[in-house]
Amino acid sequence: MAITINALESSDVRFPTSELLDGSDAVNVDPDYSAAYAILRTDAPDGLEGHGFAFTTGRGTEVQVAAIEAMAPLVVGLDLDEVLADTAAFSRRLTGDSQLRWLGPEKGVVHMAAAAVLNAVWDLYAKREGLPLWQLLARMSPEQIVALVDFRYLTDALTREEALALLREREPGRAERERALLADGLAAYTTSPGWLGYDDDKLRALIAEALDEGFTHVKLKVGADVEDDARRCAIARDALGDAAQLSVDANQAWDVDDAIAWMERLAPFGITWIEEPTSPDDVLGHAAIARAVAPVKVATGEHAQNRVIFKQLLQAQAIGVCQIDACRLAGVNEVVAVLLLAAKFGVTVCPHAGGVGLCELVQHLAAFDFVAVGGEREDRVVEYVDHLHEHFVDPCVVERARYRAPSHPGYSSEMRPESLQRHAFPGGAVWSEKEAGRT
Amino acid sequence: MAITINALESSDVRFPTSELLDGSDAVNVDPDYSAAYAILRTDAPDGLEGHGFAFTTGRGTEVQVAAIEAMAPLVVGLDLDEVLADTAAFSRRLTGDSQLRWLGPEKGVVHMAAAAVLNAVWDLYAKREGLPLWQLLARMSPEQIVALVDFRYLTDALTREEALALLREREPGRAERERALLADGLAAYTTSPGWLGYDDDKLRALIAEALDEGFTHVKLKVGADVEDDARRCAIARDALGDAAQLSVDANQAWDVDDAIAWMERLAPFGITWIEEPTSPDDVLGHAAIARAVAPVKVATGEHAQNRVIFKQLLQAQAIGVCQIDACRLAGVNEVVAVLLLAAKFGVTVCPHAGGVGLCELVQHLAAFDFVAVGGEREDRVVEYVDHLHEHFVDPCVVERARYRAPSHPGYSSEMRPESLQRHAFPGGAVWSEKEAGRT
Repeated sequence: MAITINALESSDVRFPTSELLDGSDAVNVDPDYSAAYAILRTDAPDGLEGHGFAFTTGRGTEVQVAAIEAMAPLVVGLDLDEVLADTAAFSRRLTGDSQLRWLGPEKGVVHMAAAAVLNAVWDLYAKREGLPLWQLLARMSPEQIVALVDFRYLTDALTREEALALLREREPGRAERERALLADGLAAYTTSPGWLGYDDDKLRALIAEALDEGFTHVKLKVGADVEDDARRCAIARDALGDAAQLSVDANQAWDVDDAIAWMERLAPFGITWIEEPTSPDDVLGHAAIARAVAPVKVATGEHAQNRVIFKQLLQAQAIGVCQIDACRLAGVNEVVAVLLLAAKFGVTVCPHAGGVGLCELVQHLAAFDFVAVGGEREDRVVEYVDHLHEHFVDPCVVERARYRAPSHPGYSSEMRPESLQRHAFPGGAVWSEKEAGRT
Repeated sequence: MAITINALESSDVRFPTSELLDGSDAVNVDPDYSAAYAILRTDAPDGLEGHGFAFTTGRGTEVQVAAIEAMAPLVVGLDLDEVLADTAAFSRRLTGDSQLRWLGPEKGVVHMAAAAVLNAVWDLYAKREGLPLWQLLARMSPEQIVALVDFRYLTDALTREEALALLREREPGRAERERALLADGLAAYTTSPGWLGYDDDKLRALIAEALDEGFTHVKLKVGADVEDDARRCAIARDALGDAAQLSVDANQAWDVDDAIAWMERLAPFGITWIEEPTSPDDVLGHAAIARAVAPVKVATGEHAQNRVIFKQLLQAQAIGVCQIDACRLAGVNEVVAVLLLAAKFGVTVCPHAGGVGLCELVQHLAAFDFVAVGGEREDRVVEYVDHLHEHFVDPCVVERARYRAPSHPGYSSEMRPESLQRHAFPGGAVWSEKEAGRT
């Protein structure tokens, strides 16, 4: 019996995180972690539905919601089986709409709207198959996996045939890697100690706590003041000892030459990677920084707008760490394209997470990457921030600094109904109580 | 007496251009030329106000309007003199808002919203000074001009000092160039004959008409079918004769290798530039194409999201023609940054226009570029499409294929009130009559 997608509902959900200085960095000084949330409903007798979202940081989430609503006519009324049979075509329907694309193309608000819808489609797909998303993907044949990808604008770096060959080469090891993943998950690193808003004592205490919890890789926010950063890196390195890894994240604070000079000052503290040293659009700038700061690696991706930027970052040897984001790229399909590109260029994938719900999503992507694409766990660490997981129906589980492989059907993207309700902006109880407290 | 900006009003204005196949190309198959329109109102006794817009192509204009509305809290209540005294700071206030920037940063819907607001500010500024925008800019000192620019992320290619030196060097010729401009304007080229939806007879007839009108440079849309394109280029070259210039525009239709192969087929027809051969995000791809197709030049810009992309296109020698857009870059301030970059790299600026209102805006930018920055008119042609000018209070005037220098105070960005009303979407008469005709 044919199942029809009969509604795309969207809502504006915000968490007042700016009150705590959690998430503060050189650029994002006061984020209210938010989601432009999408629910795809169907007429299936069992009430099958998919949940997805685009992560945002407060103001403007209503614009993101408007963009999701603008996609409803492209989605509502479609036959579910047809959508799932060719998600690449569905993705291109969203990202290539002949009028909407002017607003991107394939970037920013309209692209993130496509991400929210595609995330919901993949949640629905995995739920229908009764598998966690990573396992649904990791059990697809190489032919099925390449069929997820829109190779448009990629073929000078990666053709469909090359991608297929790469997947086939790694196919024999899948079963063993799946067992390894189920046995002991994926390594996480933590950003929780390193926000700019925290003082030195809190930094030291939180690093000690992170080590106690089993973390061996910590990331610090930098970029506001070089002497402050040097002091904080010294504290962190002292607290971490020689064995643990320390990375830093400038959140786009610098021009190219500033980045190089700043990192000369911080490199002696033993830095694994410098993340977002400059504008996320500046491929050539990242390449210049990468040449100058080696062996410190350059990492970026949370603001890399689409696969074309990742393609160039890899072609130009501008990044040593590829930080896919589950909500800025157009959903699972474009993430798979980037995973394949990174595998071809031999670059480590360490997903961006944190915010709200990003950890829940990227654990699936990293798990799939390990099992079927990249085939490696060494040096592949998934960002972890211990915030807001309680709002999810199937929250990620990190124990002894390792993500446990998700086991519930779906993409772990579904928020609890009461969380959606309480944090609805501006009408939800959390916000109306704040407003009442203010007046 | 202090003047306050006391309202930012926005509206959704659409023209049903898709009915005529005007504006059809390989990617934009059915645009309804539209504007997310912004009016800045003040409490000045004379009713001083500024009009600006972001050009869009139909569906999704409501998303663009929502983004303009999201900026109202950043604008309303500001002191006008403070805004005009430092428009670079005002621009950064819009593009750097710590929460809104996640939705870009500096790209797509949020960046175009900043463009609409900044265009309105500059219209207001020029009206208050009683000058057409180009003249307001062209009479600023080199120090004032560099003060308009946010050099963030540019300093590896262009420093404030280099920009200042360049402007000073060209300052002595300004008066003479202003006289030349006022005497005989700026050369235009036309895209009107070359839309993909037109048949061969219409193409030939429209080229003959363009030559009669004095045009010496015509652009054809290409990219759907190489044999069709070769036939159309042959017709165009035949109709144009040897002296007139022929450019082609693929509107992002190709991957890198396809672009190179396609242009091998078309180059024999004497092509000045190939515009938008591939993804507008692909700096390295454009550079590879530029190396392969020389002496045909590569042109792009209408989808180049911000100054960081233009910086790289210039650094990588990826473009020979720099096509600034008045509504995708964040208004006059970011356009000035790109004009300075292009001047430093010695690349010709030929603004993108057409759509609705773009000709009205870019004529000011090209005029300022000629007088104060680039200092050249040779080979600098401004796109011209003879559509929708009647909706503007101060429409551009093109005679004998030359834009006449605008003379009215402002940025020529103001639409007629009756046009705004009739084309309001979905409630305006044009749309409600269409809807009624359909049912």
